[in-house]
Amino acid sequence: MTDNTQVRLAQRPKGLPTDDVWDVTTEPVPEPGEGEFLLRTEYVSLDPAMRGWMNEGRSYIPPVGLGEVMRAGVVGEVVTSRNERFPVGAHVVAMTGVQEYAVSDGKGVQVVDPDRAPLPTYLGALGMTGLTAYFGLLDVGEPKEGDTVVVSGAAGATGSVVGQIAKIKGCRVVGIAGGEEKCRTVVEELGFDACLDYKAGDLAAGLKREAPDRVDVYFDNVGGDVLDAVLPRLALGARVVLCGAISQYNADGGMRGPANYMSLLVNRARMQGFVVFDYSSRYGEALQEMAGWFADGRLVSQDTVVEGGVRAFPSTLLKLFRGENTGKLVLAV
Amino acid sequence: MTDNTQVRLAQRPKGLPTDDVWDVTTEPVPEPGEGEFLLRTEYVSLDPAMRGWMNEGRSYIPPVGLGEVMRAGVVGEVVTSRNERFPVGAHVVAMTGVQEYAVSDGKGVQVVDPDRAPLPTYLGALGMTGLTAYFGLLDVGEPKEGDTVVVSGAAGATGSVVGQIAKIKGCRVVGIAGGEEKCRTVVEELGFDACLDYKAGDLAAGLKREAPDRVDVYFDNVGGDVLDAVLPRLALGARVVLCGAISQYNADGGMRGPANYMSLLVNRARMQGFVVFDYSSRYGEALQEMAGWFADGRLVSQDTVVEGGVRAFPSTLLKLFRGENTGKLVLAV
Repeated sequence: MTDNTQVRLAQRPKGLPTDDVWDVTTEPVPEPGEGEFLLRTEYVSLDPAMRGWMNEGRSYIPPVGLGEVMRAGVVGEVVTSRNERFPVGAHVVAMTGVQEYAVSDGKGVQVVDPDRAPLPTYLGALGMTGLTAYFGLLDVGEPKEGDTVVVSGAAGATGSVVGQIAKIKGCRVVGIAGGEEKCRTVVEELGFDACLDYKAGDLAAGLKREAPDRVDVYFDNVGGDVLDAVLPRLALGARVVLCGAISQYNADGGMRGPANYMSLLVNRARMQGFVVFDYSSRYGEALQEMAGWFADGRLVSQDTVVEGGVRAFPSTLLKLFRGENTGKLVLAV
Repeated sequence: MTDNTQVRLAQRPKGLPTDDVWDVTTEPVPEPGEGEFLLRTEYVSLDPAMRGWMNEGRSYIPPVGLGEVMRAGVVGEVVTSRNERFPVGAHVVAMTGVQEYAVSDGKGVQVVDPDRAPLPTYLGALGMTGLTAYFGLLDVGEPKEGDTVVVSGAAGATGSVVGQIAKIKGCRVVGIAGGEEKCRTVVEELGFDACLDYKAGDLAAGLKREAPDRVDVYFDNVGGDVLDAVLPRLALGARVVLCGAISQYNADGGMRGPANYMSLLVNRARMQGFVVFDYSSRYGEALQEMAGWFADGRLVSQDTVVEGGVRAFPSTLLKLFRGENTGKLVLAV
């Protein structure tokens, strides 16, 4: 059997996770024990949250340890099995990290059907990303029919699903994305009512125009200037869903907070964080509903697949932080 | 009859409201018409929120217009009356502004009993300040028995009441205030479990020590560095109540947002603003409950009364922003 190539965290990054924070190692492919199976990684999920996992300190999940294989969700195929729930040939989603092979006992692993959706989609709209969008929007954002929902990172993995679900729920949906092309995708392919290109400037005027009744739900993936542009436009009783702050994760001077946060007071609004893991008991119901929308064509999955194997992980992660992807970014192994 | 001296807003301040933003004018004392009464102002309330009312732009209440008498809550005595609900000699609370006399038709005016509490207390613990503390803490903060509640501006008008109500509700209460003497008052006279002097430095260590189980409810009156020190110490599911940001109202470089706001995500916490006016239909029930606590000695009102009449309003307001008061700051007219 071949070796198992792995990407390990060698040091904690300051700012962008450059090549020197990673170690690429190889070791023999492990053997599954009784009740275990071996999976061959097919696709690796790339997520903004990874940047947080690389930092020391208390968070919603322990940091990746120095020297450890980088944490990542993957889709893999079972190649050897001593667990009848995961037969050889099955495709599974697992959190086995950035490596070519992994042994699992099946805990937290789901079998997925490649005939229902392309495999990368199980890391995107029909995976953790979709679940993040679903629970963040519906449970934290609590949109009502007719509400105006604004989503930043609208062309990104989570944002693109958030907006589509908000449309399904009868909301007016305005995306915010970086660049004309992304905005075109968001409106023409994902069905948002409008999309504002923050790189074109004057987001405030765009929000006034496209959200004339103000903003009932703001789903924030980016933080920074975009968050500060939306806050003054909140409606009374608005809900700001904190999903991420990708504009700030690699900032040199540390995180910058939203200067306009007192708009929460003026508008009796709330800003609330969430972690998708808290909803694990409801993943099944959510995935079933989303799979239905997907089958009906009401939920489109935008997946950007980068070739190159696990060795390409460091450079692909930088693509994510540079906003070069549209939809879900996955690495083909 | 004598003249009516008034303090009017002459220009919008940048930073601290210095003397030149005010005009002191005199005009004849007005005559009440049918259904109206004339009140002689006895005490004027000074509130951090006043700084916001002086700014242009959309807020929860229209700004004070240039040339208008400065908005303020007052306690006054009815001196002439053509309204039987407000007989001569009655003491009333009204929003008649910084002037010695005012005519009112009684709308939004409450008669108060000087035998139940000193008159300044009706602007403080048993007035709008107390109501702000009551609804902000109980309705927005939702403290449960055994929770740790942290309050900034703990020696101030609102904070001092928030902490006392939290104690009544069975919480561990940690105040944050500026200076040893204020902290002593907060613990010894108001019954907080602890008080941290932010001027003494290392608020983070103090919070670790005094809120070892982390912070379930944070009632924020100040913003800035104090807010940023508390955010990383939030408990899972914590509630941050946004009542004010006095540290930022007069800042030269504009408002600064909380850099540590992503703690809301990590801790699945929310930050929520409110405006006491929204609770007007419940003022009666709240004041009745608070008057009971006051009568029982469970709620202490700290009132700082400054002498000097309405002409002393500008300098007294600066005392407020310099944090020179303990408890409710009122001006005796």
